[in-house]
Amino acid sequence: MAIRILTISRQFGSGGRSIAKDIANRLGWDYYDKDIIDEISLETGFSKEFVASKSEEAPGKTVFSYGFESHGIPGIMNGMSTHDYLWTVQRKIVRQIAEKGKPCVIVGRNADYILKDFEGVLNVFIHADMEFRINRVLRKYGQSEVKIEKRLNDKDKKRAVNHKHFTDLQWGFAPNYDLTLNSSKLGHDKCVEILENVIKGSENEVNKD
Amino acid sequence: MAIRILTISRQFGSGGRSIAKDIANRLGWDYYDKDIIDEISLETGFSKEFVASKSEEAPGKTVFSYGFESHGIPGIMNGMSTHDYLWTVQRKIVRQIAEKGKPCVIVGRNADYILKDFEGVLNVFIHADMEFRINRVLRKYGQSEVKIEKRLNDKDKKRAVNHKHFTDLQWGFAPNYDLTLNSSKLGHDKCVEILENVIKGSENEVNKD
Repeated sequence: MAIRILTISRQFGSGGRSIAKDIANRLGWDYYDKDIIDEISLETGFSKEFVASKSEEAPGKTVFSYGFESHGIPGIMNGMSTHDYLWTVQRKIVRQIAEKGKPCVIVGRNADYILKDFEGVLNVFIHADMEFRINRVLRKYGQSEVKIEKRLNDKDKKRAVNHKHFTDLQWGFAPNYDLTLNSSKLGHDKCVEILENVIKGSENEVNKD
Repeated sequence: MAIRILTISRQFGSGGRSIAKDIANRLGWDYYDKDIIDEISLETGFSKEFVASKSEEAPGKTVFSYGFESHGIPGIMNGMSTHDYLWTVQRKIVRQIAEKGKPCVIVGRNADYILKDFEGVLNVFIHADMEFRINRVLRKYGQSEVKIEKRLNDKDKKRAVNHKHFTDLQWGFAPNYDLTLNSSKLGHDKCVEILENVIKGSENEVNKD
């Protein structure tokens, strides 16, 4: 089965996004990441910042997270919580991307789960040692007020809770992915090489059309 | 850092052991699997069957699992439970193998955790889809009385509890490994190729001595 969609889930600071971009470039595939946030923002009317923050956090259960309370748009959100409403839109957009039929790389957004009934999808998880992640985040974003290690652990926890909430699967559990890579141990280039090799080797059918 | 030790943890029925054997053959590395059971048996006096069954099951907490109750060898097991006693012997043997300094592949035995302070170790986890595992187990071992899927789930659970008990780490959680592979999705040959490529690429220092 030729792989035509690569989903990349990753720990913050692992360089997973940068690996994803490089593979998309090398293969000449479409690349989706923040674009999905933009689409959700466009469709829902929420700001990009709001969508981005909500789409990674642990869904709240207070009444204030419900649309009819906090946004007053009954009829659109149909009584769903903001998280659930954003999830349905995200799900629709990710599926539309896949249904286009153009080979692509999708970063995050629980795309692995959303596309579980699609064929030709390779699901990858990228992680790295804490020290590597701390250094990468420091280099890229500078120092924040919150201690970096705590911030990374919080991010991991939020992503795990979000993933569990919407997919009932454990984020980062190997059997939920086809391949997982430790980018700090293997290095960026080796990760790209492995994924490119797997995709190109998948019957070499990808570039025929 | 040249990789000199490959540890393979795997789901039962994933073909992980067969992948491990092939890599050892290709690289000309030593291969340890059941040999470790034999060594533990030799050192403790317990039968191979007993060691094999104990070393994968979830440690019991009843008084009957304690050496001084069930085996009456005070002084040797020093009041430890049978599981803890076997663990200390297993730990010693795995470390002795690593200390030999000869490149090798070690299957199972929590070797990833036991060797966590050694350099040049690549920790890999191999899993597969349930259907693939069922077919493989049926083909290799025939039908058992217990429904195969239940048997596989039980095996997974036991390995997970055993691993958690002795290492405090979650078995199969991607960040605890350098690389994890879905053998049913990628295929046996691709798994071997990826691992061989990673090992040979690690500074090509492995075969210098």
